[in-house]
Amino acid sequence: MTMITTRVGIGIDVGGTLTKIAVVSAAGRRLCDLEIATHAGRGPREFVERVCALIGGAMGSLCAGRRRPGSRASFRAAKRRASWIAGVGVGLAGDVDGRRGTLRFSPNLSGFAGFSFKKAFQAELKAPVVVDNDANMAAWGGYVVEMKRRPRNMVCLTLGTGVGGGLVLAGKLFHGATGTAGEIGHMLVEPDGEMCRCGMRGCLEAYAGAYGIVRTARKLLDAPSGRRSLLRRLCPNLKRLDPVVIEAAARKGDRVALSVWKTTGHYLGLGISNLIYLFNPDAVLIVGGVSKAGALILKPALEVLRARPFKAPFRHARIRVARAARLGAVGAALAGLEGEPERSA
Amino acid sequence: MTMITTRVGIGIDVGGTLTKIAVVSAAGRRLCDLEIATHAGRGPREFVERVCALIGGAMGSLCAGRRRPGSRASFRAAKRRASWIAGVGVGLAGDVDGRRGTLRFSPNLSGFAGFSFKKAFQAELKAPVVVDNDANMAAWGGYVVEMKRRPRNMVCLTLGTGVGGGLVLAGKLFHGATGTAGEIGHMLVEPDGEMCRCGMRGCLEAYAGAYGIVRTARKLLDAPSGRRSLLRRLCPNLKRLDPVVIEAAARKGDRVALSVWKTTGHYLGLGISNLIYLFNPDAVLIVGGVSKAGALILKPALEVLRARPFKAPFRHARIRVARAARLGAVGAALAGLEGEPERSA
Repeated sequence: MTMITTRVGIGIDVGGTLTKIAVVSAAGRRLCDLEIATHAGRGPREFVERVCALIGGAMGSLCAGRRRPGSRASFRAAKRRASWIAGVGVGLAGDVDGRRGTLRFSPNLSGFAGFSFKKAFQAELKAPVVVDNDANMAAWGGYVVEMKRRPRNMVCLTLGTGVGGGLVLAGKLFHGATGTAGEIGHMLVEPDGEMCRCGMRGCLEAYAGAYGIVRTARKLLDAPSGRRSLLRRLCPNLKRLDPVVIEAAARKGDRVALSVWKTTGHYLGLGISNLIYLFNPDAVLIVGGVSKAGALILKPALEVLRARPFKAPFRHARIRVARAARLGAVGAALAGLEGEPERSA
Repeated sequence: MTMITTRVGIGIDVGGTLTKIAVVSAAGRRLCDLEIATHAGRGPREFVERVCALIGGAMGSLCAGRRRPGSRASFRAAKRRASWIAGVGVGLAGDVDGRRGTLRFSPNLSGFAGFSFKKAFQAELKAPVVVDNDANMAAWGGYVVEMKRRPRNMVCLTLGTGVGGGLVLAGKLFHGATGTAGEIGHMLVEPDGEMCRCGMRGCLEAYAGAYGIVRTARKLLDAPSGRRSLLRRLCPNLKRLDPVVIEAAARKGDRVALSVWKTTGHYLGLGISNLIYLFNPDAVLIVGGVSKAGALILKPALEVLRARPFKAPFRHARIRVARAARLGAVGAALAGLEGEPERSA
């Protein structure tokens, strides 16, 4: 932890299981990371209180050395130190109404729907609050941290359990008419293909989301050629199969695992190809847990792009996998620091 | 023809075969339409001269009654009347460098590549010139004329021989990094599907472009059930089959023709579905010759959209087929009147 000398931005990345919090300096430096279980079932009020107590404690430590968390002194210090907060950004996994700061709909945070996180955090932390979809926040984090705001047009894909996205067009986050623009994961890549969690078949998410990748692996393991795969030894309980194990097996040269990433990368390439035709971006940034597979997915994706006959936009766009972690929380903190009009179109 | 009292915009929509020209009042009213063969093989200089002579003649007539075209008096009058031109817009069928006003690449206007239409028309018509892709010009025409600039975000599909598109985002035309954004026709809708003119398989254009529609019809006519189709009587020489005949047959209830439009509309729906997920637009506008099929393609397309489980963005977007004609030339004239910064992002 670093002692702070300027006002800071707080980013709160609310996922279905975990909530990640980042404290970021006005200059964009990450000062402190926090993590807390979301427990959406307990309702949004309890969640906001818990998060604010945690932030208050961290702010106390950042401003005047560490205090025993939860103590009265810590609470008073937190109140005092709240004036150090220049802005707060909240990223929510779901369909977000940015103006009201509410979650319209979310499969993983259903207990939080309709509640104004904007009002609640504003009241608790005495700072302006920006609320957006978590993929948009991650895209903004990637745009600032990874891309240094250089490309004017950037498409960001977030590869996690699901596949999401954020669009930075002419230097600003593009939200569309009702705030749902950038739903990259539900682009069609295989009509009548695998089932997607959205209820349709053949979406990009059904192949490049973590659950899609695991499904591809299971199918290959069920085939006769999958009997001797290293994956079976690394993960004897196939119910626990996840992209991390599949990546480890691929790095050791396991054919089944390599084939899984080839399929995943191929579909990712089909999706990116559509995105380049539509947006003609300067850059495509891939973030999120699954993106750690790096070249394993990037290589087959680039092969798809190289085959496109219409060269100009494909030559122009740089495709890159993000290196920085916690871009969702950092992006939210930056969004909080910058405020709404600076950042979005 | 109407006598003009204010300065006008000239729109020049340069297609592979025909060039359509529109003279539009500052208030956006269409004053006069002209049409001329393109003859790209004769080179761009000859083309610009011919177009300017035609415009000069028309301007003479619009300003001071009709003169014998090509006469010396007409030419002098044209020179004088050029001062009535407030701006010129040129739409070119191909990949356009808007800044330089040149065509980078075009399969149908190859003789025109590299030539600066911006400089040439500026010199001849003594007015500022805006050069853009023809689909972008049509999208802008549709946005102003059909949509009255009301929706902030509109996606426009141009259905002609090929399938193109234009994106109006936050009220401005979006060009992307190198000016090729909105290549809707090359979005994937059927992996390993029909061949597209771009050289890939399964693009939207391969199904919803005129040549794709004709191919769908031929395949159905070759099947045993196609033997007795009305299409065979309406168009005994199947080499001459085109969307107009297929539309006529469908309106008379021919099963084969109806099935052709159902297939076309289905793929169009898959494409529009992707566009709604990505752009979350207020409106989707369909323009171009093939769009005259109206409900025949719109109905199956809407069926695809209704099946999407993620309702909000689909409920919000209005899908509409344009009624106005010559939107490419009119949009170019409006672009010329408005100039570059007003219109594009």
